[in-house]
Amino acid sequence: MHIAITGAAGFLGQRLVQQLLARGELRQQPITRLTMLDQVEAPLPEAGDVSLAALALDITAPGALDSVLDQRPDVIYHLAAVVSSAAEADLELGMRVNFDATRALLEGCRAKELTQTRLIMASSVAAYGGALPAVLDDMTALHPQNSYGAQKAMCELLINDYSRRGIIDGLVLRLPTIVIRPGRPNAAASSFASSILREPLNGEEAICPVPVELPMFVMSPGKVVEALIHGAEVPSKSLAPFRAFMLPGITVTVAEMLEALRETAGEKALSLVRHEPDSRIEAIVAGWPARFETAKAKQLGFTGDDSFKQIIDAFVTEQQ
Amino acid sequence: MHIAITGAAGFLGQRLVQQLLARGELRQQPITRLTMLDQVEAPLPEAGDVSLAALALDITAPGALDSVLDQRPDVIYHLAAVVSSAAEADLELGMRVNFDATRALLEGCRAKELTQTRLIMASSVAAYGGALPAVLDDMTALHPQNSYGAQKAMCELLINDYSRRGIIDGLVLRLPTIVIRPGRPNAAASSFASSILREPLNGEEAICPVPVELPMFVMSPGKVVEALIHGAEVPSKSLAPFRAFMLPGITVTVAEMLEALRETAGEKALSLVRHEPDSRIEAIVAGWPARFETAKAKQLGFTGDDSFKQIIDAFVTEQQ
Ligand SMILES: NC(=O)c1ccc[n+]([C@@H]2O[C@H](COP(=O)([O-])OP(=O)(O)OC[C@H]3O[C@@H](n4cnc5c(N)ncnc54)[C@H](O)[C@@H]3O)[C@@H](O)[C@H]2O)c1
Ligand SMILES: NC(=O)c1ccc[n+]([C@@H]2O[C@H](COP(=O)([O-])OP(=O)(O)OC[C@H]3O[C@@H](n4cnc5c(N)ncnc54)[C@H](O)[C@@H]3O)[C@@H](O)[C@H]2O)c1
Repeated sequence: MHIAITGAAGFLGQRLVQQLLARGELRQQPITRLTMLDQVEAPLPEAGDVSLAALALDITAPGALDSVLDQRPDVIYHLAAVVSSAAEADLELGMRVNFDATRALLEGCRAKELTQTRLIMASSVAAYGGALPAVLDDMTALHPQNSYGAQKAMCELLINDYSRRGIIDGLVLRLPTIVIRPGRPNAAASSFASSILREPLNGEEAICPVPVELPMFVMSPGKVVEALIHGAEVPSKSLAPFRAFMLPGITVTVAEMLEALRETAGEKALSLVRHEPDSRIEAIVAGWPARFETAKAKQLGFTGDDSFKQIIDAFVTEQQ
Repeated sequence: MHIAITGAAGFLGQRLVQQLLARGELRQQPITRLTMLDQVEAPLPEAGDVSLAALALDITAPGALDSVLDQRPDVIYHLAAVVSSAAEADLELGMRVNFDATRALLEGCRAKELTQTRLIMASSVAAYGGALPAVLDDMTALHPQNSYGAQKAMCELLINDYSRRGIIDGLVLRLPTIVIRPGRPNAAASSFASSILREPLNGEEAICPVPVELPMFVMSPGKVVEALIHGAEVPSKSLAPFRAFMLPGITVTVAEMLEALRETAGEKALSLVRHEPDSRIEAIVAGWPARFETAKAKQLGFTGDDSFKQIIDAFVTEQQ
């Protein structure tokens, strides 16, 4: 079992690498080779018997992936991407990395006849937008309101069509907002959702810029990585007629997130959260869909977090 | 008012040219220039005061549209495309003509800063597919089951994103099945829908390969061209959040189509239709959605045919 991962030095890529090495097998076959691709050189973890390579390359360069595809990986995780704000600031960059590189990867697989290779890409809740219904489901149209979402939605169509034609065995998982991310607060509108938990758990102050009634659709990093792994194992005949769908996140209000924080870390932690409304952030986050029926994902055996409390506890355990 | 039309030598392009010349104005401004672009040289009709040009060029050639875009057309109709069967038979051809040429056109408009130019593209019912609801609406997901539909859906996303960014003032109209097309029966699965009316109206036999209970979503060529013209006139601020939607076709069963034939042309015409079931054609056509709520189009003032009888009568009048 040879697995290749683009964006392997990133947040999800790194966790996926660790999880795959910890499991040692995929599809009941021992993992013998793992190839990490990223423009940043990924650190080489302890890998036991697995033949590990970390290649620093720009996936948008012509033929960049040829040598990896020549090795006929059984599973390719395509996680390299530029984030929403970067794709909005620079249309060319977003098109090149988020769309053209995906197309080149598909064409590479086609040239090498990797018809049995499972290609798994991460799409996003940002692909949704416009006049959304109260509860979204697998048949809700994608009307993205940012270039990142449009590029992801175009990749979904392309991967589905190449899979339907039998060129590749593709799958696209739309990820809920990932909470709790490690690190520091940043400029992303979603930053607060991790920050209001992570900082107080570390005894630091955090700012909540939105009303506590605001609902969000979230998934823990652990469950997302579990879904990426499960995505390699679902039978391909169960994926038609459309190979892109939302993962089963859970819907929680900010108030419920904070209540779970209180249960785990007490009143003192909760008191570290300062409420400073920011109408710009509220407007962005309020536009994100928060309620989904994820029938397809559930039917295929993807699972979400049991509760928000569990998300917090997993974060605390991981940090120890 | 300068109007440029790609695919101007085609079925809809030719009708659009004639209709525009007959009107003489668009957006209450006299049409001064009309540029027809097609790989096939379009015939030059009588044009009065309008400065008319027919350029034979391949829109997929690099810079093919530069000289036209330099003239800063106010409205661009982008109708050049390869049909469904050709796009399915040749993935590269479909991607190049149906997708890359659209992207190149958008990039050309961006380079020339044609931010006020209304770009109107034709999408298709073939963009829908998969597990569809009984009645589709503006929020029904596009899960295309053929490459032509996937390419059209990708163009919709791109045109919407470029419009949202203010690069161009785009609009994509999804067309119902067009009935009655002139010409002869052909290999297209939809061919019978025109043939079972057109041939008997001309005193010839026709074959109906599907059960008469089968419903279809149809629009006359005249109404489609009217919609293309109206598409140039709807205010751009009314188009957000998503600039692609289905036109208001009408739902009719084959039985209703044949009943309208009988009303117009009598029992004798009806008796020219032979019923010879073809399960391959039935399977394809039965997969096409037949019932739509076209709220967005109607709200924007697009109109459909009043009745199927009217569609037949318009065809008869036109032929005389
Ligand atoms: N984290 C989330 O909340 C979230 C939500 C939805 C979808 N996603 C998607 O999941 C995937 C992984 O997300 P992440 O949070 O790990 O992102 P990340 O930014 O941490 O990692 C992306 C990686 O891609 C690499 N990369 C970018 N451009 C490259 C190029 N041209 N060549 C080679 N490598 C390049 C970066 O160096 C980075 O290591 C992305 O596709 C992202 O769009 C993430
Ligand atoms: N007719 C329908 O039932 C229907 C339904 C839905 C959508 N549409 C869409 O409407 C548009 C017009 O349809 P139509 O029925 O008039 O099609 P058509 O095939 O009659 O016309 C298309 C024209 O595009 C031209 N063309 C193709 N490739 C070209 C290239 N590389 N460079 C320059 N010109 C090129 C062809 O020469 C042709 O004249 C198309 O985009 C089609 O996909 C049509």
